[in-house]
Amino acid sequence: MSTVNRQWVLAERPIGRAVRESDFRMQESPVPTPDDGQLLIRTLYLSVAPVMRQYMLDGAGFEKPLAIGEVMRGRGVGIVVESKHPDYAAGDIVQAKLGWQEYVVSDASPWWMIYKVHQRIAPYSTAIGVLGVTGFTSYLGLVDIGRVKPGDAVVVSGAAGGVGSNVGQIARNLGCGPIIGIAGSAEKCEMLTTKLGYDAAINYREEEISPRLGELCPDGVDVYFDNVGGNTLDTTLTHLARHARVVLCGRISEYVDNEEQPYVLQNYQQLHKRVASMEAFFIYEMEEHFPRAEAAMARWIAEGRLTYAEDILDGIERMPKALIRLFEGKNRGKQMVRVDPNAEAYGRD
Amino acid sequence: MSTVNRQWVLAERPIGRAVRESDFRMQESPVPTPDDGQLLIRTLYLSVAPVMRQYMLDGAGFEKPLAIGEVMRGRGVGIVVESKHPDYAAGDIVQAKLGWQEYVVSDASPWWMIYKVHQRIAPYSTAIGVLGVTGFTSYLGLVDIGRVKPGDAVVVSGAAGGVGSNVGQIARNLGCGPIIGIAGSAEKCEMLTTKLGYDAAINYREEEISPRLGELCPDGVDVYFDNVGGNTLDTTLTHLARHARVVLCGRISEYVDNEEQPYVLQNYQQLHKRVASMEAFFIYEMEEHFPRAEAAMARWIAEGRLTYAEDILDGIERMPKALIRLFEGKNRGKQMVRVDPNAEAYGRD
Repeated sequence: MSTVNRQWVLAERPIGRAVRESDFRMQESPVPTPDDGQLLIRTLYLSVAPVMRQYMLDGAGFEKPLAIGEVMRGRGVGIVVESKHPDYAAGDIVQAKLGWQEYVVSDASPWWMIYKVHQRIAPYSTAIGVLGVTGFTSYLGLVDIGRVKPGDAVVVSGAAGGVGSNVGQIARNLGCGPIIGIAGSAEKCEMLTTKLGYDAAINYREEEISPRLGELCPDGVDVYFDNVGGNTLDTTLTHLARHARVVLCGRISEYVDNEEQPYVLQNYQQLHKRVASMEAFFIYEMEEHFPRAEAAMARWIAEGRLTYAEDILDGIERMPKALIRLFEGKNRGKQMVRVDPNAEAYGRD
Repeated sequence: MSTVNRQWVLAERPIGRAVRESDFRMQESPVPTPDDGQLLIRTLYLSVAPVMRQYMLDGAGFEKPLAIGEVMRGRGVGIVVESKHPDYAAGDIVQAKLGWQEYVVSDASPWWMIYKVHQRIAPYSTAIGVLGVTGFTSYLGLVDIGRVKPGDAVVVSGAAGGVGSNVGQIARNLGCGPIIGIAGSAEKCEMLTTKLGYDAAINYREEEISPRLGELCPDGVDVYFDNVGGNTLDTTLTHLARHARVVLCGRISEYVDNEEQPYVLQNYQQLHKRVASMEAFFIYEMEEHFPRAEAAMARWIAEGRLTYAEDILDGIERMPKALIRLFEGKNRGKQMVRVDPNAEAYGRD
């Protein structure tokens, strides 16, 4: 085991602008030692997600803002190297708020949201993807917040992203249709219709969204699962069916703009006109429903009815790049970083 | 009984402008005669509501638009003069979509949404007010859409209007607090706090809403019952508590503007930030819940815990004026017109 712990700390806040690599600084510190009641975890994978820009700015409204010089916050999958905690043993695979670092000591208190990974069928990476919070966001956003019913017309923006790449397939497995994905390249759109359960895809960089939605959803959109906000949200509002549900999951298209002049919504009146609703959710407040989401997703994976798309970079040094890829729309499926090259080998023998 | 039926018909559509008296034309026609299966109703009271401007424009999205020359649509309370329908007898008091006229023949089919008025305690006028659709809008909007809980901070705009004058009292009876009303004059604000159950009132013509909401709801607004839309909605969004519910009931402040350039919402992002929801409803789709709302409201009236505010003009010739008063913010409580001067005398002996 290395004695050096590489960590990414916050160097600058991306106020009113996009995230840059120089917003982070890598530092090296000694690998920490667990006290009684603590465990030492070695990081296997780290997740990146759009909300991390908010962590850098203001804590996203539910955590205290990161201080400059503090280790970047984020979830990951790790292996317990040493445990002085009665509930954990060396060799356990866990997912938790590991932070952007190779090693971390945790007391497994509620803040850490630490869960053991029991399954040995899918790669461990899925614990921060389709079988982790990203997947639960897809499932609970669509099912609990969107309240989808068989036959519903479902539209998903950011459809090739970590969350969106699951939502189309979940909608398909639940009998919805048509299921339309919006994404930003021909290659992504191809992936949506060939692999990810979508009936049709709209390439927003090449096509006008509004007339295409009109053609594809002639009876209106029953559920709009919004990962991007901004103009795509506004346009889709004009295609809502009566009693439509708009699920506010993300607004990545707005994050690069100046927060002091946020996107103004042109068409909120459509909620009145279509007797519709628009609702945000915070996945970590839905923890009691995680087992239900996990069971459904795991069953579909076992049945071959849910393909997961992962976009993995190698090496902790690429964490900032991985995050920036999200905002550039470069990722295909769930973006993550493999921190330990042997990640999948542990506990497989 | 008169042989002449005075009726108001649509003369012009208020496209992109406020409603004017000249948008209506009064005509006289013979009192109609019921066929088998029909009943003749004499109008006692007629209701006016902001949605009527939408009826004039586009049918409000759920009825076919009124033709020019057609009798204005609207609900009222009436007395059955003659019945050839098995379920109704002369002397029955009913509420239904009577239209802006002194007499109407109905077949009592579902479109009419005709209900008998059984209670003889409160004035018949309450059947189009606190014990009618206006009252049900207040109750079901707050309880079913707003999902209020005891202790919730509740803010109501248009608080001195037909709906708003009930909402504060319902919130009080359900244990909410603080309960804040927003209205447009000192006199209305006085009424809110002395008679209508509000803890405090904000006069939006004299005071800045935002700092006052900050003082009055330091922990944020749990339920915002919005009757006005526009800037008041936008401002209140910046004061939402976590998990707040915004009930989209009306947007009267926007109706006078040009519909081609609707109000743009500055602060929809607050829904993300506060993990909040915004939901519209259409009261006529909640008919199955009317008895529950009516029972609760009637009980509170009997217990002296619900005061109803009615603003009554006399004479069918004042219907256009009554409607315009709403948009001018002149009404105190539910605006209606007494069409029959003896309205309350029938069936009281």
